[in-house]
Formats: sequence, structure tokens, C-alpha cells
Amino acid sequence: MTDRLTGTLLIGQSGGPTAVINASLMGAVQEAAKHEEIEQVYGMLHGIEGVINETLIDLRRERQETIQGLLTAPSSALGSCRHKVTDADYEQILRVFKAHNVRFFAYIGGNDSMDTAARISKIAAHDGYELRVMGIPKTIDNDLDLTDHTPGYGSAARFIAQSTMDVGRDLEAMRPFDNVIIMETLGRHAGWLPAAAALAKTRPEEAPHLVYVPERAFDEEEFLQDVAALYKELGCVFVVVPAFLKDAQGDIVGADKSNVVKDAFGHTLMSQSSSTPATYLRGLVAKRLGLKARVMLPGLIGRDASSCVSPIDRAEAYVVGQMAVRQATQGTSGHMVTLVREPDAVYRCTTGLAPLEAVANAEKLLPAEFINDRGNGITQAYCDYARPLLGALPVHTRLERYPVATRLSV
Amino acid sequence: MTDRLTGTLLIGQSGGPTAVINASLMGAVQEAAKHEEIEQVYGMLHGIEGVINETLIDLRRERQETIQGLLTAPSSALGSCRHKVTDADYEQILRVFKAHNVRFFAYIGGNDSMDTAARISKIAAHDGYELRVMGIPKTIDNDLDLTDHTPGYGSAARFIAQSTMDVGRDLEAMRPFDNVIIMETLGRHAGWLPAAAALAKTRPEEAPHLVYVPERAFDEEEFLQDVAALYKELGCVFVVVPAFLKDAQGDIVGADKSNVVKDAFGHTLMSQSSSTPATYLRGLVAKRLGLKARVMLPGLIGRDASSCVSPIDRAEAYVVGQMAVRQATQGTSGHMVTLVREPDAVYRCTTGLAPLEAVANAEKLLPAEFINDRGNGITQAYCDYARPLLGALPVHTRLERYPVATRLSV
Repeated sequence: MTDRLTGTLLIGQSGGPTAVINASLMGAVQEAAKHEEIEQVYGMLHGIEGVINETLIDLRRERQETIQGLLTAPSSALGSCRHKVTDADYEQILRVFKAHNVRFFAYIGGNDSMDTAARISKIAAHDGYELRVMGIPKTIDNDLDLTDHTPGYGSAARFIAQSTMDVGRDLEAMRPFDNVIIMETLGRHAGWLPAAAALAKTRPEEAPHLVYVPERAFDEEEFLQDVAALYKELGCVFVVVPAFLKDAQGDIVGADKSNVVKDAFGHTLMSQSSSTPATYLRGLVAKRLGLKARVMLPGLIGRDASSCVSPIDRAEAYVVGQMAVRQATQGTSGHMVTLVREPDAVYRCTTGLAPLEAVANAEKLLPAEFINDRGNGITQAYCDYARPLLGALPVHTRLERYPVATRLSV
Repeated sequence: MTDRLTGTLLIGQSGGPTAVINASLMGAVQEAAKHEEIEQVYGMLHGIEGVINETLIDLRRERQETIQGLLTAPSSALGSCRHKVTDADYEQILRVFKAHNVRFFAYIGGNDSMDTAARISKIAAHDGYELRVMGIPKTIDNDLDLTDHTPGYGSAARFIAQSTMDVGRDLEAMRPFDNVIIMETLGRHAGWLPAAAALAKTRPEEAPHLVYVPERAFDEEEFLQDVAALYKELGCVFVVVPAFLKDAQGDIVGADKSNVVKDAFGHTLMSQSSSTPATYLRGLVAKRLGLKARVMLPGLIGRDASSCVSPIDRAEAYVVGQMAVRQATQGTSGHMVTLVREPDAVYRCTTGLAPLEAVANAEKLLPAEFINDRGNGITQAYCDYARPLLGALPVHTRLERYPVATRLSV
């Protein structure tokens, strides 16, 4: 072991992009400039594939304005991947690291990426190659364990909340022409994204009216009862469902079971069938209740919307990138930077550390106290947790509607 | 005829909401405060239905902050409708107008609403009841004739362009995991909304790669050829289609023809079938080309997104509301306020007037010179026309990606 480790910093981005993942890259690159022991700053193109294929780029040659521009550019500027790393790949990765004297490795990603980083750390140690490996958390799904929340979530949640707020007003205005709106969010097994719709509501009668999460089995008959009752009361119903809405058997509601795409990690990614939970439920509502329903599937807009970024999310994404590099230069390795909420009255987060292996392949689901008893709504406890992460939401004015006395007999 | 007409101003909103229709309401209400001859300012709840049912509200009793808040609140604050007015309705409308001494009538809407306003004007004249009727243009579809463009379009177009820009970067980053993205826009028979995606492109290889409009018959085989060729060249394909993508027979592509919903005007509004053009084409791309495709159906988010409003669109929406009331007090009637583009190098619009009847039930389609020869893309002429309407779009940084020399033999 050298007294002071010097060498190349290699940075990569992995998994699904977010609206703020490039802010983490910027934080890492700008922090690296402050440390003499970092001799080169390289980026890997398309995540770990860029290491395996030795397609690296020199980030120090980029113009300052380009690096500054990362703060507001959505998606992964280095390219991403969903590559399941094999044993042979790990040997190649170590060869590439040695060839470029990579001594600091920062990987921006979710739980699968933390697993990859943990294995690289272990293999390097086994080989006696000194390497500082740091994870930088990123996922719109907010399903990483051991961190209060994950950069990327606040902005994706803001898109859901603001869309619910905006279109909720549309549904009110068009009542009774449109009866039901069903919005489907991204997300895998955790319900953090559909839950965010709850932050749109400022009055009991406002959207959303029904919110479902993958943590609870979906019951079609209860759903139809609830839609019918809400329609009778309010004249319109705004429903939010996750792409992974599951029935009591664990199957995705409305999906053609023969036609599901899984990634290299075995995660179901999407159904290629023409039906999704939202389109299926639209048909159900039309057929069983005779109501007109519209579907909204914003899809990837929900993770990339540059118009809808949470300022706090962007700032935190920058800080976790920055801290990962700072920690690595201070000797930390094998950890992911976490966000730690201070118990202050005013929201404030500092950073902490969690072992990569503890984060890898874990999945933080929505806790039971964030879901209502009937499994069709989100609690105040969730709203208290999540509200600060989105930044200040707009406040849409509402006319008081002072009635003019009628002058004609009805 | 009195020398100087005095009485109530009645304002209503009709048809599909937009992100800036309330700015027009605000403009009308604030202008009315400047004119002594306007004795009351009433709003009609849910468009013409509010007149028929005599559900009027007193807008002068609203707080100033509430009226100011209309500038940024999406959707129709007065409520909207899609009511086809009958002869009996018109008699009732005139009774209500007389009962409340309505002498100024401003209707914010699209071509159907201009038709309603034109008929009210005619019936009042026939009855000898002095009434000044003004139309205030509104539609995300940009299909109103005799105006350079329509308030509401710039913001809806901005949402499409910015979403294409954002998700285009996502598709690049995830290549080759995601192969094809198919985004479906709102809109009826005119292709102004899908065309707006073209404004996202700053380099030839960037999204969108294929843009289809309802003005051209869609050919599945040509589409598949184009997707296959672009995928071979770029590794990913971003496709934009309208909800009303039509084949050579005039049928909506992929729709279950037995299950289509029409409004009271006979316009096809949506298909209740689980398949839409985008979901149908996803299946086609998967089946015929073996490519993984994702669908995005932002739906009503595309007309209400408060995060994505064009500043110029908002300002123009305010001005047309203001001018309608000013013109009415000056004696104009039976006209819609139009936007007139000045032939300056820098974009600038003034307002003009068009007869309600000339606007009513007309539909301005995308001119042939805005669509490329193959019918799968949008021309520079469109971009020159539309770019100023969206406001300045964000510029997303792009790494130069200076390669690091490889050190391992391949």
C-alpha cells in the first residue's frame, strides 16, 4: 500500500436515467479537480460495458461550460446500460483498471449497480490491487435501502404530483364529459412513484381520488366499487396506478402473461402486450360501469422531464457525486454515499455512508404506514416524508365562484 | 340603439382546457375593470351550460390575488363543456341574457365555440336585443383559421418538443436496451401537435426520427421499412404519432373500429379500445422487426402541463382576452380576436379581427409545405413558423467524448 494513493478516477452511470443523474456526474468531476492525487478523470461509455470494451473518455478535456451544463441536462450523458456482469467480465474490468491506473471508481446507479461495484471492490482486493470504490445513489424508484431517499426520486415524484394537480383541474372542468382518468406511473416493485400523486391534493375533493401501489394486491371488484362510489359523489374520478399493479396471484393486472420482457437481472421490465394496467382498467371501467375513461401513460417523460426538476433533488444529486469523490480521496472504499435527514423542523439532509453490499440487491418498499387500510390511498405520513423532496409545488388559484342570484323561474 | 351600451359582461370557457386559457379569462376581467359601461362581470359555469342553467358567478367579487393567480393556473377555472346547443337552448340563452342585462358576451374556445357565439349573435340581432359578441381563440390543436396561431398551442407544443428532447437523450443513453420509443400526441385532424416534436432536433441524429401527421395516410409497410433503416443506422428510433393517425381508408390505425366515442358535434374524440396508434405500432414493431419498443401516451398532461408553459403563449392568451373586451366596448361584435404576425425579423404579433362565422367549423390543417415528401417528417418551414411560439427551449449539454487511447489489445 502506498502512503497516498494516486491515479485515475473512473466514473460511470448505470440503469435507467433520471432528470438529475448528470448533476451527480458534475459533482464528481468538479470535486475531482480539487484533489491532486486524482491524475486523470475518465468516464466510461454506457456503464460497465464501457470498461469491458475499454471505451473510455477523458472528462478533463471537456470544456467547463459543458461540465456546468450537466447540472440541467436530463438522462445519462455518459450513456447507460443494463449489463449483468459475468465472471469473465470482472477479469477484463480489472485488466482495464490496471492498464489505466484506475485507483478511484465511482459508479452512479441503483441497487444492481451497487452490486456490480461491490464485486469489483472484492475482486480488486482479492487481487491485491488497491482501488477505492464508491457508489453514488440514483433511481427514480426511491427503492434503495439505507438512505433517506435517492436522488432522481424528487424530480420524478414532482412530475407525478404536478401532472396530477394540472390534469385534476382539467377533469374537474370537463366533468361530466370525462368521467375517469387513469394515470400509470413508472416503477418496479415499490410504490414510491404512484404515491407521489398524493402530494397534489390540497382539498379532499381534489385529485387523486384513488392511488394504488404494488405493495398491495389489487382487487378489481373493490376498485369498481370505489370508482362507482366516487363518481356518484364527485362526478369524476382520478386514478393513479403503477406499471406493476399486481393482483392477488402476483400477476400484472391486465398484462398478456405470455409477453413479458425481463432484463439481464431477471427483473420484469415491461410487457410488450398492447394492454397495460391503465388501458386494461379503462376497458373495465367502460364495460362494467359505463363510464368514459382516459388513460395517461407518460412513460419515460416521467423520469426525464427537464421542465419539472425538483431544485432540492438536483442539489442533492450534485452533493452525493461530490461526496463520493471526496470520501474516496480520504480513503473510504466499498460504500455508497447516503442522504441522512436531520431531525430539524426545517428539512435538511447531510450525507452518510452505507456498505455497498448492504445496499446491493435490497429493495426498499413503501412502509405499511404510508398506505391506507383499504389499499387505495396514501397517508399523511407519506406526505410529511416526501413533500420536502419535490421542492415547492405551484399553487393553482381557484375561483371562489360567488353565485349570481337566479332571475328566471326554473 | 342606445348611444352608449351599458350592461353586464358575461364570459365563458368552452372545449378542451389548455395551460393558458385562464390567462385569457384574466385579461378579459382586468380589461373590463377599465370600462364604466361594463356594470357587472359574470362568469358562466361549464360554458354555455352555465347560461342555459343560469349558473352564473360574480367575478367582481373574487379577490385580486385570485384573479392574478389565473395567469398560471392550468385548465378552465370556470369549468368547460362540449354541449351542442339546440334551438330551444338559444331561446333560453336569450332569456337569461335579458334577465341579467348581458350586453357584452365573450366566449373563449375553439371553432365549435365560435359557431355557438355566432349563432347567439344572430339570434340576438333577430330579436332586436343589442348584444356585443366576441370570440377569444383557444385550442392546443392550432386548427383555427384566420389567425396566425391560437393561444394554447405554444405551450402544448412546448411540452411535446421538450419531452422529445428529454426522452430522446434517454433513448440514446439506453441504446441498445431500448430500441424504439413511440410517443402519441393529442389532437384531432390537424397535425400541429406531432409536428412540434421536430423543434427538439438540433442535430440530424437526434430525436425525433419519424413524425407522422393525420394529414397524410399512414402506410404500415413504409413505416416498418423506415424504422428498420433508422435502427440500423442509429441503434434507436424515436417515433411521434398523433392519436388520429389514419390509414389510406381514413380509419384510425390500430383502433377497434366498433368502439369509438364521438362528441355532440360528431367529432371522434377517442377510442375506448385498449389499442391506440402507439400501442398498436409497438406491437407491430415487436412482431415484425423484433425490436423492443416503449410507448408514451402523455394524454391530457400534454394540454395542462403547468411546468411547461410557453411565456409568449401565456402573454398572448392574456392579450386576446383583453382585446376582446376592449373591442366589445368600442362597438365591435360578431368577431373573434386573431393574432397577426408582423413581418419583422424578430417575432412579434399584434391582434386583429375575424368574423365568427368565418372561423366557426373551419379547420386549419398543416399546410403541405410543412410535411416532408415521404410523409414521415416535418420541414424547416414549419420550424421557422413555430419556433417563436414555444419560447426559448432549454439547451441540453452534450459531452464531446474525447476518447482515451486504448491500452489493451482487443
